[in-house]
Amino acid sequence: MIPPTIEWCDGAVRLIDQRRLPAALDILTCRKVDELCDAIRTMAVRGAPALGAAGAFGVALAAARSEAETVDELLGDVGDAGGRLVATRPTAVNLAWGIGRAMEAVNDVAVRASDSPADLERVRVAALDAAEAVARADVHCNEAIGGHGAALLDDGARVLTHCNAGSLACVGYGTALGVVRRAHDDGKGVSVWVGETRPALQGARLTSWECQQLGIPATLVTDTAVGSLMAGGRVDAVVVGADRIAANGDVANKIGTYTLAVLAYHHGVPFYVAAPTSTIDAASPDGASIPVEERDPDEVTSFAGVTVAPEGVDVRNPAFDVTPARLVTAIITEHGVHHPPFTFHP
Amino acid sequence: MIPPTIEWCDGAVRLIDQRRLPAALDILTCRKVDELCDAIRTMAVRGAPALGAAGAFGVALAAARSEAETVDELLGDVGDAGGRLVATRPTAVNLAWGIGRAMEAVNDVAVRASDSPADLERVRVAALDAAEAVARADVHCNEAIGGHGAALLDDGARVLTHCNAGSLACVGYGTALGVVRRAHDDGKGVSVWVGETRPALQGARLTSWECQQLGIPATLVTDTAVGSLMAGGRVDAVVVGADRIAANGDVANKIGTYTLAVLAYHHGVPFYVAAPTSTIDAASPDGASIPVEERDPDEVTSFAGVTVAPEGVDVRNPAFDVTPARLVTAIITEHGVHHPPFTFHP
Repeated sequence: MIPPTIEWCDGAVRLIDQRRLPAALDILTCRKVDELCDAIRTMAVRGAPALGAAGAFGVALAAARSEAETVDELLGDVGDAGGRLVATRPTAVNLAWGIGRAMEAVNDVAVRASDSPADLERVRVAALDAAEAVARADVHCNEAIGGHGAALLDDGARVLTHCNAGSLACVGYGTALGVVRRAHDDGKGVSVWVGETRPALQGARLTSWECQQLGIPATLVTDTAVGSLMAGGRVDAVVVGADRIAANGDVANKIGTYTLAVLAYHHGVPFYVAAPTSTIDAASPDGASIPVEERDPDEVTSFAGVTVAPEGVDVRNPAFDVTPARLVTAIITEHGVHHPPFTFHP
Repeated sequence: MIPPTIEWCDGAVRLIDQRRLPAALDILTCRKVDELCDAIRTMAVRGAPALGAAGAFGVALAAARSEAETVDELLGDVGDAGGRLVATRPTAVNLAWGIGRAMEAVNDVAVRASDSPADLERVRVAALDAAEAVARADVHCNEAIGGHGAALLDDGARVLTHCNAGSLACVGYGTALGVVRRAHDDGKGVSVWVGETRPALQGARLTSWECQQLGIPATLVTDTAVGSLMAGGRVDAVVVGADRIAANGDVANKIGTYTLAVLAYHHGVPFYVAAPTSTIDAASPDGASIPVEERDPDEVTSFAGVTVAPEGVDVRNPAFDVTPARLVTAIITEHGVHHPPFTFHP
């Protein structure tokens, strides 16, 4: 129904070009690491779990494309690619995690490898095997998250979500939307309020589209309309994804998430975060230690090439915000439902 | 610096076409009541106080254009126009108030008028005089609001505002932005956070532009970024306008205002509403009795002709929300600063 967000095919990384949705379902083929870096930077592929797979496939691509004749040269090429990949988006920890997974696999084989062509090929295969494993594990993870999370939703629950934490944010199935999807498949009669999610409108463009593909009843609203929905008692739960979760349970996610958490708290609506454990960065003690990416002001001042703000206006455009753990009702991972106080260990 | 938002000129109503800002400062001339109705409906002119003047000028325009040969016919034409005008936007009470002001003036003269051409002309002049008085009073009102409100702002205050409650929302000067403007003119070194205000982006398009024209330091952010600004302690006060204030102090204003009020409450930031007393509808006992306009889904699903959501998606697009009085720190009118509990009598 929805093809894989990212996959390996014929020596290249193929991904759904999410910049083109919902107008067109185009597939982008990245044959070079720099093409993949551009795709990540411009959000052709986005979403923390999908970025984990993109990082791992990026390492596999670097290994496959490398013309190195020695193990050291190959490790140099792969390490260089990993550095370029990790620099594309600073907040989602899964990107670094996915790169790390593939690099570990490369290193494990490389320490025992000679410079023979057969051994170099074994290193390359190890990188790709690791990336494929990351991709497969993502879908299994999300199915487990869906199962744990769906149990939290009552029959007929009206679920508000933000940005896109669906299949398109992952290799497949989805995290926050995976929870809704599972509840829908279980016949719970759930429906979704889709916040459009300015500035990049991932809610309007991607989550609305996914809900349509899956037959899940969904209603699109501007981010500004969410407060009145809650005041009117029309939201039963908020379920969002995460780009990085600190050791104390503070959650970095798409800008606007924090506002939803405050609104949910104010109205007594449960606020759930659904994310694989690869999103947890135990090395970040709390939200204050998570770097927040500032993106191009053009995302705010223009739209589809049309300028919507006066020239020269000052703009702040943080891509993420941090929701403190005290506003989070529960964090749903592949291992189950975690209630506060949260303590995630390395 | 900023021309009047709306004025009478050569037998027609001239107004700034706010759909074209900030790209162009175009003047739209409405020679017929239906043209003015269209201008109101499509938000070429918007903002509660400006709609008050638009309503009054609309009645004057109907009177001026009427080819009636008797007082009764003239009253019929004027009454018909008033009905069409008031139906254009259901939430802002100032529109009905402005129409009412001009109609009263018409009726006052009409009861003593014969069907002579001279008497019919006196009725027409009365309508225009009343409309001009509404327009003049609006600017004086806003200057008074500015004075009362500026006293509430500390030196260097970083003020968050929403939508546009500036000169463009009024005949001139502004309400919420009038407060900032006066503080700026008083040398308080204030600055403005401008929330872009989806779906129609009045903040990005209009408030940013006004701040530039007035030399007030301003930074544009998406509505989704406001929560993190507050969490970071970077907002000292919220000042917004109002489209209708109920007798108990509940405030209907642009969609998204309620969310700002909840955020301000959660962070201990004062939340001020600046509006002329013509915005107060003592006949509405509370917010629940205020009708909220639902606007075209296209405002959410497309932008400058570009579709941003899948075809057939369900949309809710309420133009306003209601902030309960308990979240309002003070209401600033031309008469002074009103603190809770609010009780506005007819």
